[in-house]
Amino acid sequence: MTDVRIGVIGLGNMGTPHAKNLINNEVPGAVLTAVCDARAERLDWARQELGGDVALYENMEALINSGQVDAVIIATPHYYHPDMAMQAFAEGLHVLVEKPAGVYTKQVRLMNDAAAKSGKVFGMMFNQRTNPLYVKLKDLIASGELGEVRRTNWIITNWYRAQSYYDSGGWRATWAGEGGGVLINQAPHQLDLWQWTTGLMPKRVRAFCYFGKHRNIEVEDEVTAYVEYDNGGTGVFITTTGEAPGTNRFEVAGERGKIVVEDDKLTFWRLRVPEPEFNRTYQGGFGQPECWKCEVPVRGTATQHVGIMRDWVNAISQGTPLLASGEEGIHGLTLSNAMLLSSWTDSWVDLPLDEDLFYQLLQERISKSSTAKEADEYRKLDLSGTH
Amino acid sequence: MTDVRIGVIGLGNMGTPHAKNLINNEVPGAVLTAVCDARAERLDWARQELGGDVALYENMEALINSGQVDAVIIATPHYYHPDMAMQAFAEGLHVLVEKPAGVYTKQVRLMNDAAAKSGKVFGMMFNQRTNPLYVKLKDLIASGELGEVRRTNWIITNWYRAQSYYDSGGWRATWAGEGGGVLINQAPHQLDLWQWTTGLMPKRVRAFCYFGKHRNIEVEDEVTAYVEYDNGGTGVFITTTGEAPGTNRFEVAGERGKIVVEDDKLTFWRLRVPEPEFNRTYQGGFGQPECWKCEVPVRGTATQHVGIMRDWVNAISQGTPLLASGEEGIHGLTLSNAMLLSSWTDSWVDLPLDEDLFYQLLQERISKSSTAKEADEYRKLDLSGTH
Repeated sequence: MTDVRIGVIGLGNMGTPHAKNLINNEVPGAVLTAVCDARAERLDWARQELGGDVALYENMEALINSGQVDAVIIATPHYYHPDMAMQAFAEGLHVLVEKPAGVYTKQVRLMNDAAAKSGKVFGMMFNQRTNPLYVKLKDLIASGELGEVRRTNWIITNWYRAQSYYDSGGWRATWAGEGGGVLINQAPHQLDLWQWTTGLMPKRVRAFCYFGKHRNIEVEDEVTAYVEYDNGGTGVFITTTGEAPGTNRFEVAGERGKIVVEDDKLTFWRLRVPEPEFNRTYQGGFGQPECWKCEVPVRGTATQHVGIMRDWVNAISQGTPLLASGEEGIHGLTLSNAMLLSSWTDSWVDLPLDEDLFYQLLQERISKSSTAKEADEYRKLDLSGTH
Repeated sequence: MTDVRIGVIGLGNMGTPHAKNLINNEVPGAVLTAVCDARAERLDWARQELGGDVALYENMEALINSGQVDAVIIATPHYYHPDMAMQAFAEGLHVLVEKPAGVYTKQVRLMNDAAAKSGKVFGMMFNQRTNPLYVKLKDLIASGELGEVRRTNWIITNWYRAQSYYDSGGWRATWAGEGGGVLINQAPHQLDLWQWTTGLMPKRVRAFCYFGKHRNIEVEDEVTAYVEYDNGGTGVFITTTGEAPGTNRFEVAGERGKIVVEDDKLTFWRLRVPEPEFNRTYQGGFGQPECWKCEVPVRGTATQHVGIMRDWVNAISQGTPLLASGEEGIHGLTLSNAMLLSSWTDSWVDLPLDEDLFYQLLQERISKSSTAKEADEYRKLDLSGTH
């Protein structure tokens, strides 16, 4: 079987290591054949670092039309993801998109439709799905060990970013440039894992976002969100880039006990008898189910971005199921959009959310953005997806 | 100096051990001289267990008019606390009230006014203020070690109660009988400590209470509350009686790091340089302040109810300041009332809260309560306080 020929679109903070990993043969069955970037200095870098066998392009159209690639990895700014993915699908290419899937779900829904129609392999760079802690958590919930989930609580506040980080690029943390803050840039991993591990999406969301609270930025840098699930359970998600040292603690309470993932450890407080059964039969007034604190072994290491690339390439060449299907990128983005919308409207947001309203309120912010000059370009891109 | 002569009003779950502790000389400088309870079987118990020197009364009026007491401990159902305290102050007695201070702040405000006018020593049975963990936390915050508080998060879900607990008394977990659920019965300690340790009361509250979600009861058995403080900080408070094994984890993030109280331990993640200073000077983009994980020694043991009684008796006989002043009972109750009001109105509640609205909505619930027969009695008591 011949190697899958891969093009990397965008040689920024993420595309650069992806290209290098491919060149270093970290992904068996795959070969880097082309890269593109609009910036001459990034192509200079590619010329020197990637070797003569890799074709260099200034724009994605040239790359996807080159006949040199079977598949592309899209690592451009967030707003471009859906449109570029759709162009690639239209050319019959497989696609792996960096997170987030896009900036608003309306745009991402079009991408998902295009992916489905194309029949190509569509992956999302949710590298934290390779973390054995979350794989184990998902297993314990899906297998029924924890029982029905009743309450989730994720405090993910260790995404510290100083002002100098935000000042490092004019597009950073702007509505026109990134389309959001901590929810769109840092926390998409946890927003994905929150629903992926539990198998639960909220039915409604009430969130409290603060914009430029800790830093001189336009977008949200602190969020507390409250959600209700269809099964009657509830959840809280807290994130910020303004806190040091911050916390990363994910607690899931279920009918059979409680699981906490923190400090690279998974602990399961397991009830000997499920709580509902205890409650039905216990007659003693005060008293509670016997509980065992179980240190659950978690084996393996997180293969991260390389792991996701390998998984995607295997899916292309061998038809194996994806660990992180591209279509699933919309779930975390839905949570993110709903949290912003709830704050903007100071009210509950029912899911599925009002995507037109979100789009409209986002456009209002883009038009007033400090990088609003770029907004025309973004808007043009956005609309191109609606054709 | 002669002993302070104490009467215990109500020989239920709390008054009974308080009386025994006094008889067992656990409180130096105090002597139990009288008790009252409307139930003959409780007076029979008192006759057998408390010895012949303790006068027995069927009602509080007889006790407080007996001339046999200088001070009373009120351990009756919640609704009675303010009215009984006011009667005792009117008789020139010192008062120690079991938590909660009352059921609604309007009632408690009258009690506080009466206490202030009386000049007597007014204590509240916040026995968890004697826990050295929270004393230390308060110290670290008040002394500036943690810096300005930015975020609080208390998950206090280990108040498990089975249905058999609620079934053990018809008045339990009813609007007429208790005036609330987990917020009024179990969590008042944490609602008090939340504001006592941080020195922060919210400026507004948005809460999500569920009524009879986990148990067959009228009142709230699960609460998630979000608050905003005057200083720009935010907080989350989560409690339920429906979860096992539950969690008791209090996290406070500040400008100089983070403190977590959990598992009878206080841990301080201390930043070498305060975060705002780091942020002002750091130029490296990614990167964060150096942080030391400090295991802070916490000495002493929680003296609990006996400790509060000793403290109150010392305040009476020696004029020492109270660890838990009765007037401060209104703070936690304000939080509790605001959380219910926010849920009932499905909206923000600004503090100071609309006490008349809370009272009105509570009365509506009392009138429909399964123990509504008792409601007339409660209403009569409530109104007596307005004279």
